[in-house]
Amino acid sequence: MRLRKVKGASETIAAHPEIVIPNGEELKGNWQSVFEKEQPIYIEVGMGKGQFMIGMAKQNPHLNFIGIEKFDSVMVRALEKVLEAGELPNLKLLKIDAEDLTDIFAENEVEGVYLNFSDPWPKPRHAKRRLTHENFLTRYEQITVPNGYLRFKTDNRLLFEYSLVSVTGYGMKLEDVALDLHQREALDWNIMTEYEEKFSAKGQPIYRLEAQF
Amino acid sequence: MRLRKVKGASETIAAHPEIVIPNGEELKGNWQSVFEKEQPIYIEVGMGKGQFMIGMAKQNPHLNFIGIEKFDSVMVRALEKVLEAGELPNLKLLKIDAEDLTDIFAENEVEGVYLNFSDPWPKPRHAKRRLTHENFLTRYEQITVPNGYLRFKTDNRLLFEYSLVSVTGYGMKLEDVALDLHQREALDWNIMTEYEEKFSAKGQPIYRLEAQF
Ligand SMILES: C[S@@+](CC[C@H](N)C(=O)[O-])C[C@H]1O[C@@H](n2cnc3c(N)ncnc32)[C@H](O)[C@@H]1O
Ligand SMILES: C[S@@+](CC[C@H](N)C(=O)[O-])C[C@H]1O[C@@H](n2cnc3c(N)ncnc32)[C@H](O)[C@@H]1O
Repeated sequence: MRLRKVKGASETIAAHPEIVIPNGEELKGNWQSVFEKEQPIYIEVGMGKGQFMIGMAKQNPHLNFIGIEKFDSVMVRALEKVLEAGELPNLKLLKIDAEDLTDIFAENEVEGVYLNFSDPWPKPRHAKRRLTHENFLTRYEQITVPNGYLRFKTDNRLLFEYSLVSVTGYGMKLEDVALDLHQREALDWNIMTEYEEKFSAKGQPIYRLEAQF
Repeated sequence: MRLRKVKGASETIAAHPEIVIPNGEELKGNWQSVFEKEQPIYIEVGMGKGQFMIGMAKQNPHLNFIGIEKFDSVMVRALEKVLEAGELPNLKLLKIDAEDLTDIFAENEVEGVYLNFSDPWPKPRHAKRRLTHENFLTRYEQITVPNGYLRFKTDNRLLFEYSLVSVTGYGMKLEDVALDLHQREALDWNIMTEYEEKFSAKGQPIYRLEAQF
């Protein structure tokens, strides 16, 4: 999701260090300090405009969340939404590239990782950029607790097929697979992302997997 | 697929021991002897009316096939089709219950197992009857070569979700997953089963997985 350049985005972001945490490396091993309460931290990698993280933070006050996004132009939209949402002491944002996760978080610092509608990178030669490529799984594993979770939703069939093979090939245990999530009963726990709303409104099935390291 | 009782089915079957092999237990460890050529043996468990096995046998003269079905009333339909198809020295049929596979085949006797549109047994209390339940995977593993293959197609979303978790939980390696098989390019290798023709004509996606012990 490469938005057009948003004028003044980096300035707006810099003006809210209480929400978009600057200098993440310095907090390595010490992320609990940015939250009001010490409680398990979940991250979303490739958060986009933040709807999922905000919904999760509201739904789960007993958990801490960090929404990660690499583009200023997208992050600023998420920031605006967080500011609108009002007090959410269990949600912070972080503008980094997923490549750098292990510079930012210490071992066992994260409880689980969410990926939602990650860029599909359909060309085989771009497979390494997919956020479910084993190179990324290695990073997630390094920063999560033993038996930490990866939860992944997408509308993209080919990316989901790839991801099933990738995560199980990595040795992760599939805990749950949904091939048409919105057909599931008792789905009140599911927070929709921006992309999820768009694609499910078109009638496309939403795929979801939950896997454990 | 519980067909109405077909009159004279068991007599018709008994009249063709050159195709529907009787007394399978006696051939344990010696299945190559029923074929013209000694070559890898693939089985389909829950063959139904035989279209897939006949197509596979024609397409792959360098492989041997055994179509397994437990009901007389279904087996007799498969037998009729094999008789119509003419000379297929690399195809035999076997009327047994999948429960008994390990009484019939010796270790390493089978190269791979096909499951197509297996009965879904949707109720949780019937999970043990699903042909991808770990109790069946254990049997398949016992009779197949090391790194033997399981190839499974179905239209049933819930059974496929279950099977992904079951086969990977068993420790099998997912080699390929298709969430809408008929959208794949270069699908000329795919032999359609009776159920596959029916469900794909209705526009339902066909799921397929290939996994290795
Ligand atoms: C297709 S959008 C999905 C946004 C949101 N998760 C949703 O479901 O609506 C993917 C987002 O991931 C971000 N992204 C992609 N690769 C990334 C990376 N390596 N590190 C951080 N963010 C990334 C993109 O900038 C984009 O905002
Ligand atoms: C739904 S039909 C599918 C038939 C065929 N494979 C197709 O795709 O058209 C399932 C078949 O599996 C057979 N079957 C189910 N459980 C079996 C078992 N335990 N052992 C052998 N055959 C079984 C049924 O009798 C039925 O003919």
